[in-house]
Amino acid sequence: MIPYELPEGWREIVARSLIEDLGPGDVSSSAFPPDLTLDWYIEAQADGVVAGVPLAAELLQPTEIAAADGDRVTDRTLVMRGRGPAAHVLSRERPALNFLMHLSGIATATALYVAAVEGTGARIVDTRKTIPGLRNLAKYAVRCGGGANHRIGLFDGAMIKDNHIQAFGGIAPAVRALRATIPHTLRIEVECESAEQVAEAIAAGAEVVMLDNLAPDVMAPIVARHKGEAIFEASGGITLTTVRAVAESGVDLISVGAITHSSPSLSLHLEIG
Amino acid sequence: MIPYELPEGWREIVARSLIEDLGPGDVSSSAFPPDLTLDWYIEAQADGVVAGVPLAAELLQPTEIAAADGDRVTDRTLVMRGRGPAAHVLSRERPALNFLMHLSGIATATALYVAAVEGTGARIVDTRKTIPGLRNLAKYAVRCGGGANHRIGLFDGAMIKDNHIQAFGGIAPAVRALRATIPHTLRIEVECESAEQVAEAIAAGAEVVMLDNLAPDVMAPIVARHKGEAIFEASGGITLTTVRAVAESGVDLISVGAITHSSPSLSLHLEIG
Amino acid sequence: MIPYELPEGWREIVARSLIEDLGPGDVSSSAFPPDLTLDWYIEAQADGVVAGVPLAAELLQPTEIAAADGDRVTDRTLVMRGRGPAAHVLSRERPALNFLMHLSGIATATALYVAAVEGTGARIVDTRKTIPGLRNLAKYAVRCGGGANHRIGLFDGAMIKDNHIQAFGGIAPAVRALRATIPHTLRIEVECESAEQVAEAIAAGAEVVMLDNLAPDVMAPIVARHKGEAIFEASGGITLTTVRAVAESGVDLISVGAITHSSPSLSLHLEIG
Amino acid sequence: MIPYELPEGWREIVARSLIEDLGPGDVSSSAFPPDLTLDWYIEAQADGVVAGVPLAAELLQPTEIAAADGDRVTDRTLVMRGRGPAAHVLSRERPALNFLMHLSGIATATALYVAAVEGTGARIVDTRKTIPGLRNLAKYAVRCGGGANHRIGLFDGAMIKDNHIQAFGGIAPAVRALRATIPHTLRIEVECESAEQVAEAIAAGAEVVMLDNLAPDVMAPIVARHKGEAIFEASGGITLTTVRAVAESGVDLISVGAITHSSPSLSLHLEIG
Amino acid sequence: MIPYELPEGWREIVARSLIEDLGPGDVSSSAFPPDLTLDWYIEAQADGVVAGVPLAAELLQPTEIAAADGDRVTDRTLVMRGRGPAAHVLSRERPALNFLMHLSGIATATALYVAAVEGTGARIVDTRKTIPGLRNLAKYAVRCGGGANHRIGLFDGAMIKDNHIQAFGGIAPAVRALRATIPHTLRIEVECESAEQVAEAIAAGAEVVMLDNLAPDVMAPIVARHKGEAIFEASGGITLTTVRAVAESGVDLISVGAITHSSPSLSLHLEIG
Amino acid sequence: MIPYELPEGWREIVARSLIEDLGPGDVSSSAFPPDLTLDWYIEAQADGVVAGVPLAAELLQPTEIAAADGDRVTDRTLVMRGRGPAAHVLSRERPALNFLMHLSGIATATALYVAAVEGTGARIVDTRKTIPGLRNLAKYAVRCGGGANHRIGLFDGAMIKDNHIQAFGGIAPAVRALRATIPHTLRIEVECESAEQVAEAIAAGAEVVMLDNLAPDVMAPIVARHKGEAIFEASGGITLTTVRAVAESGVDLISVGAITHSSPSLSLHLEIG
Repeated sequence: MIPYELPEGWREIVARSLIEDLGPGDVSSSAFPPDLTLDWYIEAQADGVVAGVPLAAELLQPTEIAAADGDRVTDRTLVMRGRGPAAHVLSRERPALNFLMHLSGIATATALYVAAVEGTGARIVDTRKTIPGLRNLAKYAVRCGGGANHRIGLFDGAMIKDNHIQAFGGIAPAVRALRATIPHTLRIEVECESAEQVAEAIAAGAEVVMLDNLAPDVMAPIVARHKGEAIFEASGGITLTTVRAVAESGVDLISVGAITHSSPSLSLHLEIG
Repeated sequence: MIPYELPEGWREIVARSLIEDLGPGDVSSSAFPPDLTLDWYIEAQADGVVAGVPLAAELLQPTEIAAADGDRVTDRTLVMRGRGPAAHVLSRERPALNFLMHLSGIATATALYVAAVEGTGARIVDTRKTIPGLRNLAKYAVRCGGGANHRIGLFDGAMIKDNHIQAFGGIAPAVRALRATIPHTLRIEVECESAEQVAEAIAAGAEVVMLDNLAPDVMAPIVARHKGEAIFEASGGITLTTVRAVAESGVDLISVGAITHSSPSLSLHLEIG
Repeated sequence: MIPYELPEGWREIVARSLIEDLGPGDVSSSAFPPDLTLDWYIEAQADGVVAGVPLAAELLQPTEIAAADGDRVTDRTLVMRGRGPAAHVLSRERPALNFLMHLSGIATATALYVAAVEGTGARIVDTRKTIPGLRNLAKYAVRCGGGANHRIGLFDGAMIKDNHIQAFGGIAPAVRALRATIPHTLRIEVECESAEQVAEAIAAGAEVVMLDNLAPDVMAPIVARHKGEAIFEASGGITLTTVRAVAESGVDLISVGAITHSSPSLSLHLEIG
Repeated sequence: MIPYELPEGWREIVARSLIEDLGPGDVSSSAFPPDLTLDWYIEAQADGVVAGVPLAAELLQPTEIAAADGDRVTDRTLVMRGRGPAAHVLSRERPALNFLMHLSGIATATALYVAAVEGTGARIVDTRKTIPGLRNLAKYAVRCGGGANHRIGLFDGAMIKDNHIQAFGGIAPAVRALRATIPHTLRIEVECESAEQVAEAIAAGAEVVMLDNLAPDVMAPIVARHKGEAIFEASGGITLTTVRAVAESGVDLISVGAITHSSPSLSLHLEIG
Repeated sequence: MIPYELPEGWREIVARSLIEDLGPGDVSSSAFPPDLTLDWYIEAQADGVVAGVPLAAELLQPTEIAAADGDRVTDRTLVMRGRGPAAHVLSRERPALNFLMHLSGIATATALYVAAVEGTGARIVDTRKTIPGLRNLAKYAVRCGGGANHRIGLFDGAMIKDNHIQAFGGIAPAVRALRATIPHTLRIEVECESAEQVAEAIAAGAEVVMLDNLAPDVMAPIVARHKGEAIFEASGGITLTTVRAVAESGVDLISVGAITHSSPSLSLHLEIG
Repeated sequence: MIPYELPEGWREIVARSLIEDLGPGDVSSSAFPPDLTLDWYIEAQADGVVAGVPLAAELLQPTEIAAADGDRVTDRTLVMRGRGPAAHVLSRERPALNFLMHLSGIATATALYVAAVEGTGARIVDTRKTIPGLRNLAKYAVRCGGGANHRIGLFDGAMIKDNHIQAFGGIAPAVRALRATIPHTLRIEVECESAEQVAEAIAAGAEVVMLDNLAPDVMAPIVARHKGEAIFEASGGITLTTVRAVAESGVDLISVGAITHSSPSLSLHLEIG
């Protein structure tokens, strides 16, 4: 089950994808007799988790949807099927697959990280390192893959970094300054690079601590010492190889930029017949 | 040198990237004193080809641009530097890097394929398998990486596939039907799966032949037989491992979907100081 | 039969036409009782070819459509009829007629040129001299009138003119330079003013030759000499009076700017009852 | 002097004209060396009145503007000149000329009608029969040609026609009903087909009377009888041949749909050198 | 009965209201089971006149609409009811109520002024002092409250103020200058501060006279003297306390800025069950 | 000092305000000589706090800005002054003042509430009861008046109400369900109507407790008992008369819907000279 809905605005993104492909018209479909209809289906060609089915459906208007966002698929799993005028099907095939392949790629990569930390209690979260224009859809795909979302943008979570600490002369004054200005509905997260900074951040009232590029054996005692005082997020260059060790350090959250900025697409294709 | 310009409309895409990240405002920057300025620079953290510099510059307004689109970079190569109000720099850093990292990833992947076929005379071209909303920028990044563009969309090139051939009862009638309707400024490309189809397509007047998923040793005699009668494009599941052999079959163009749908991003970061 | 479909985006153009006419509201309809309904119909008032029926229908929601785009009409030919609330019909009448009258004007003018060259094998094509904002609809109307489309814009066909030839030091280097940068799905057309230039262009690989402002008796031997080596387009100040002679010179295409920039509208009106 | 300014929103229309022509890019300009600059100028090729200079200037960024909107031009009159990168000039030439040629066509046609009624005191006004999407610019061009504007749309003037008269059971109740609902800043115009209707309309408080398709000798006594009681507008199928006689009937305004829906464009071209 | 319709474009304003509230998603609704449905209703919590029902209905899709725009409501009057998925209802409740409360506030305030002048023959009109972006809806709400509209914007009525009089050297030349340029469908209103100015304006042909900040006993003789020669509008700081006296001075129109810029909202709420 | 910046997107809102007022053009300015320039200034006409200066400046392009957002003004306080063409000044005066008057009205009302609770430690916060389309600007104006922002929309704070409690069978399971789905950067607020609910909410991990419509003497002991365990927000029908007593109950935040949905505008005007 995907926690929450496709973001408002996805229909406009779908419309834009069609316009960039169709431009002034599909010249190759121009010669089809208007009454030529085709039966078609989309199936997966590899193992993964599917995401983006409603976007493809918006474009192709299928008669049957066989796989829902978040479902696992494997080679030849049917995703959807339909029947329509040849010109319609062929001019919408590519944008529909482009959404499905890209978002399923993100969901699939996320699911691999989620599986890698299974049983540890750690959650995989995304970052703001997303491909421009697709932020909300990318974060939706992460949820489809079993991950959770970090803040969506600069507006729904406060983050104190080096520059704040320098500008305000310490973590505590920086937390105080932010707390005085941001909505009370937001938590404050502080990026820390040492046990001392963590202690200072928690004392100052930080609710989330980001452990930036620390080794698991450095993080473990820090997390243990402050159990229950804050939420701990591990961040920085974590890969499928290292993620399990990071999770076992006891952190609550592991953020992985690669799931949204470097996931290869999942192979799916549209077939006629 | 990049053949042609950034597409009309890129400024709007840049604006959209800012809006999706900023939303109603950057809460973390809210406490910065308005007169706090920072010196910053962007540098590469890995080997690759950079693309997207003007988009990042539009967002960050640098004082110096050190690397142009299409330039090779390596770990610690300076890309641009500047100085500005802390709130401005920190709220634009992420969208700027997201463009740079993604487009440079495409350019870098393209350059790897281009290098792999060096000396064969074959050109690497992209496909319509692009991430939705970024078609024109992705194709620009391919040019930055030394590749060439296939048609941009459904409107600037005609492609005859199975369905046309079935609907019109053969390659020749399909070519004739399309030729009667499309602008005379467009070529017709026919997707072929056998030597017989190739011969038929060329006899019918096809100007480009796509050899779909054929092995290099199957393609080589076909291309040799029809030298100068058409342009040959090899397509289908070609990887960095196989691309050289494909190129040596004598084809003119090799289309690689992965450069736009599955390239990992190139690492770059923004540093203060 | 109209080769291909109304361009993506026409609904937005229709919506814009309504907004510019309605603005904050139709003051004259403000006093109508809401339950006053009218029967209405649109009929032609002159001979011509109709174009734009789906746009008018989008605005007026008729119950019967009696004439399709591309159909010949004459004085009093019924185009569509319907029934609706008075305020709705009267506030949409004018934009609907404005589309119908303008696009039918283009189709009608095109049909006159097409008729004038009947039997010669030459095709009438349009140009980029269109009324701003209506390019795609104007080119659709040309197809409704039996004409064919030249390139839609700067993106779907390459044209070498004087400036290219000067900049590159000759036709052949100009063709080579363009061929190296443009998608392989596009043809290259060269604008020529003499038999020498034509020979040079064809030798350089030009696929289309535009004969710019040449007299029919100058064009005829050029076309004859290069039969089958390129497509020939005659261009420049061609009128209904001269078009037949131009066609008989053997050219394949005759481009006429006037059909999209100077066609008078076709008279149609909406009647109540 | 043109009474009032270019309408708000014209820059967006100019931007749209560029996008429809450029699409994903100007392939023909792709091979130009970026430092190749051209000197260019635009000149008229026929007699007329120019309109649209600021729109062309927005696109081409000239260094000198030699003719202002509303100026008379003749063959070889310089309109503007400039110097810029070849790729920039050549990709903006066509949209710039399309605006200039179309709007100057409207201004020129308007000026012919204005000249035809000179000395009579009658003014030439436009109608809502404009090409969709260009309403405000077309009405601006009419002012450039010396004409005046009728209402811009359904919102800035009230018009009582047959349907109102029927629905309300007479002209007087229709005027009363409208007067009760529309802003007091608007006048009410009544479409009349007989002397009786005119008398009734004026008695009811109509401030403008439209004489619909009446012959000059029918209009003259009506206008004479009601001198000073209302403004009189003649409308319906008036041509350059008949407009003088109409004006001499004493009407205040003569509306001519053809100036905005059927004016041929005025010839202008852009030359290099 | 509301004179005329909701303005074209209100759906876009409704969509914008949803986007500003929902942003990337309603996090609170994320945990609701998708099949949880709620019965809901909206009722008034105070006396007033309702406006904005169709906007709320567009958002909430009710099954029953119990009160129409322009209806009087009192505490606990049912406005609409419906049934839908919890996530849908709860995420649209606030924008729907925001429209209803704000527009009903304007309608209610208007109705108070209308009631205060009952029997005098004076009409309450609005001004251009509206909250940005909601001009057309605010003016619609004024009509719902029984008021009339002054001009909607700068385009549908001409107003001569101090600056015109100074620039043209008097009221008469100013009226003449405007009359020569504006559409004949518009009236000219002159802002006057003394009996002398009123006489001059009417002699010059002004159709509407605005009496700016004059006391009722100053206005009464002016209005009496010019009965039937122009429409009189009283303007400037008129309140519920003073409006009756103003109306009794004999003016036709009383414009009140406060109804659109300072009306408190009318209380309404959405209840579940 | 205003905590943070004008929201991204305000320029578009300003542009929209101009378009709704100007429409196809300012007819009253049409007769001004183009070279007539005016000196102008804006001054306050009442006591208050100014907000919206940058929006007015964007429209009017002043030469001097004398008051910044958040400044207190009184009758005749200068806000800005400038000099420009008459047509420009007069067509932008009204939208500029509409922003200033409305936003300053919100800031002024907020400041009254802030003053009323001075010294108690309670902060005044806004709600989502804002006028549609102006959410972000309204919340900015609240900050100008010294208030703080509650969540901006449904996306940057989670709120558990009755329906959640019913749907999940209690406060604790509802908190758990939300915590599992929302970004970890967001706090959870629970709406409580009794001391029992408050205890349950805090035990379940709620970080913010909203006390809904409770009397100060009911709230005081609840807040005292849970000092330091959560943030307390008082909400519901609080007025300037009651707000001090509410603040003295010890709550941290007091939300007041009226400051954004019912504030009268602050009087300011633009004068010439």
